[in-house]
Amino acid sequence: MLLSKYYLPTKRDNPSEAQIASHRLMLRAGMIYQTASGIYSWLPLGTNVMRKIEQIVREEQDAAGAHEVILPTIQPLELWAEGGRPDAMGRETLRMTDRHEREMLYAPTAEEVITDVFRNTVVSYKQLPQMLYQINWKFRDEIRPRFGVMRGREFLMKDCYSFDMDKDSAIISYQKMMKAYLKTFKRMGLSAVPIKADTGAIGGDLSHEFQILAHTGESEIFYDSHLEELILDEEIKVEELLGIYAAADEMHDAANCPVPKHRLKSARGIEIGHIFYLGTKYSKAMNVKVMDANNQQVIPHMGCYGIGVSRLVAAVIEASHDEKGIIWPEAVAPFKVGIINLKQGDAECDSQCLKLYETLQERNIEVLYDDRKERAGVKFADMDLIGLPWQIVVGPKTIAEGKAELKYRKTGVVKTLDLAEILKQF
Amino acid sequence: MLLSKYYLPTKRDNPSEAQIASHRLMLRAGMIYQTASGIYSWLPLGTNVMRKIEQIVREEQDAAGAHEVILPTIQPLELWAEGGRPDAMGRETLRMTDRHEREMLYAPTAEEVITDVFRNTVVSYKQLPQMLYQINWKFRDEIRPRFGVMRGREFLMKDCYSFDMDKDSAIISYQKMMKAYLKTFKRMGLSAVPIKADTGAIGGDLSHEFQILAHTGESEIFYDSHLEELILDEEIKVEELLGIYAAADEMHDAANCPVPKHRLKSARGIEIGHIFYLGTKYSKAMNVKVMDANNQQVIPHMGCYGIGVSRLVAAVIEASHDEKGIIWPEAVAPFKVGIINLKQGDAECDSQCLKLYETLQERNIEVLYDDRKERAGVKFADMDLIGLPWQIVVGPKTIAEGKAELKYRKTGVVKTLDLAEILKQF
Repeated sequence: MLLSKYYLPTKRDNPSEAQIASHRLMLRAGMIYQTASGIYSWLPLGTNVMRKIEQIVREEQDAAGAHEVILPTIQPLELWAEGGRPDAMGRETLRMTDRHEREMLYAPTAEEVITDVFRNTVVSYKQLPQMLYQINWKFRDEIRPRFGVMRGREFLMKDCYSFDMDKDSAIISYQKMMKAYLKTFKRMGLSAVPIKADTGAIGGDLSHEFQILAHTGESEIFYDSHLEELILDEEIKVEELLGIYAAADEMHDAANCPVPKHRLKSARGIEIGHIFYLGTKYSKAMNVKVMDANNQQVIPHMGCYGIGVSRLVAAVIEASHDEKGIIWPEAVAPFKVGIINLKQGDAECDSQCLKLYETLQERNIEVLYDDRKERAGVKFADMDLIGLPWQIVVGPKTIAEGKAELKYRKTGVVKTLDLAEILKQF
Repeated sequence: MLLSKYYLPTKRDNPSEAQIASHRLMLRAGMIYQTASGIYSWLPLGTNVMRKIEQIVREEQDAAGAHEVILPTIQPLELWAEGGRPDAMGRETLRMTDRHEREMLYAPTAEEVITDVFRNTVVSYKQLPQMLYQINWKFRDEIRPRFGVMRGREFLMKDCYSFDMDKDSAIISYQKMMKAYLKTFKRMGLSAVPIKADTGAIGGDLSHEFQILAHTGESEIFYDSHLEELILDEEIKVEELLGIYAAADEMHDAANCPVPKHRLKSARGIEIGHIFYLGTKYSKAMNVKVMDANNQQVIPHMGCYGIGVSRLVAAVIEASHDEKGIIWPEAVAPFKVGIINLKQGDAECDSQCLKLYETLQERNIEVLYDDRKERAGVKFADMDLIGLPWQIVVGPKTIAEGKAELKYRKTGVVKTLDLAEILKQF
């Protein structure tokens, strides 16, 4: 991508409305623009990262055996009444009446809608177990939207729903999804901690939240320090993770905590996922029946599993930035390499930059070439701000010797190398 | 994909509510499920095709130099008032009030929202021309939703918006997008005809619809028969296409038609895209200013460009099916190959099917293996219904000689071939 043709409206100054780093940096890096309170337009740089995160989520859901569907964002309220939630989660749900005077709502979640699909399309145990997921927009009419896309009103969410013939099988689905979640977050460079959680408005009797540790986290969490080793382990050991103590504030009982004091830690966390074993809460209420091998009608057991996709964009930034800007982990970086031409208009600089740019493109490496007629200072600041993993800096002095500077954004280490050596890196 | 683990609720009987082939076949093939009037849930097979069409649209938008953004589905009504459409397209727009009593609406289109983004992020002619597109859900509260996803209420749309410094440059953007559209539809196996059209509620003074010819089309179109040759031409000649006569019913004036009678043809068409040169309608109303090279403030000229992505799924089926089911063009087929095991449980059939399945997967060919314990008749009917381009039929007699049947769905031609020869095909 040539920066002169890209749509990247970066800002020098910190926007006064932003209280946390990710909000500040997403506005400054031209990733988002606020269209209304808690409602954002995603500009090209933000969209690029969102699509990368979405794709990692999709691949890991597919790998876990879940099938992608798309459920409507506008749902009929009558389905919620049938499912036992006639008030549809209260005032946080955006409700409306269509032109035929039917009460509708903008999906905050989709248990009732998927259960309705299921009961009308599945009849036999042969079709189970089944996991269906979607990546689609949700709306929660937060009374005080804040922290940018971290707590916005319209947000992109992956929601998955499992259907099993009995509880044992449903728990296997639950653990499968837990493992998929840990793999998903790991691929994005995040250390996510699974924590026993309250089931809230969703229901059921088993639930885990996935939190990443960050000072700006909304909730306090308590955990056995052994958890940290398990999380960092290359291998994902779901059963051990389930056995270890970790609880959100509202679930933690200091008096009866099984963890010895010297091993109990507390920290603030950002919730990026939440999974629930639902039992037969919705399937019973909505009269779902599946024939078992003995021709008997059985009520299937369900689970539901959410990941905040748009929230993850912000969470990754909270976990990885410095005072100059964002530091993208490679897996979700909008571009892998940025090229800075220090003297646009200089024949040698221009031609060598273009050559680097074209060579990297031929190798299918995503590259952003800053070919604007701007001062070096502006280019350096913008490139650090948008946080691409690698920077190649081409100036008239070094290029005269066939060299350029290669900077690794994360460490700030700069090496002056022959162009051929730089290209070997990619 | 193993069919025994997939979510494919096919139906034998024609659903009584479906009046056109695509609606009938999408319901029967388990692609969609109606959640509410004109509001559909997309099941895995439908989602798969939708994602393929979406990706072709995305690639051609990118290739045309447009940048992907994501605009909110919920918009503030006040932006529409500012843009000169205070009634927000009337009763077809789904409106609601949020918990702070602000009037909001579900996007039927996004001229005002993108213009607001633009005026707050672009200041200089150096940043133009610019084309921004999104692929996102829209809602139109049709009074009588019908024809399945062809005329549903919630639908997936690609909408692109261009910004240029003057009219000449805006017309170049318009023609660029027209060419991208013709390439997009061609890749999906569709012959789309660009037709001079009314600008309706969107506004502006130049507009083309893209229609594919089909008996079930909603509107009548009139065109010079020379158009057909141009459309079938490998090379896309935008200027010639723009010069030739083709008009929708409401734009066609029989008395003053420039085409000689013997060359004038009429047919029914399905609209799959619509492009508009908007002039300064929105940019003027919303007070957008960009500095030109002489430091003078200029009102940019806009264009907008839509493709009905979910509607395309149905349109492809209207253009390509027979009495047995869908016939997917390869570029959008949910899987390229289907394997039918005629005797599930037979050791040789099972092992040879599995080998074919694994070999095709290793070659990154999307394959659906019908490994269900069902009668041959059911498997044949389902495979024809879902319309994969190629079928490999493995039965005990042929496999004893190391052979299987290879069927090409489009022509129905079946050849009995050695397994190695079959694999050579892919």
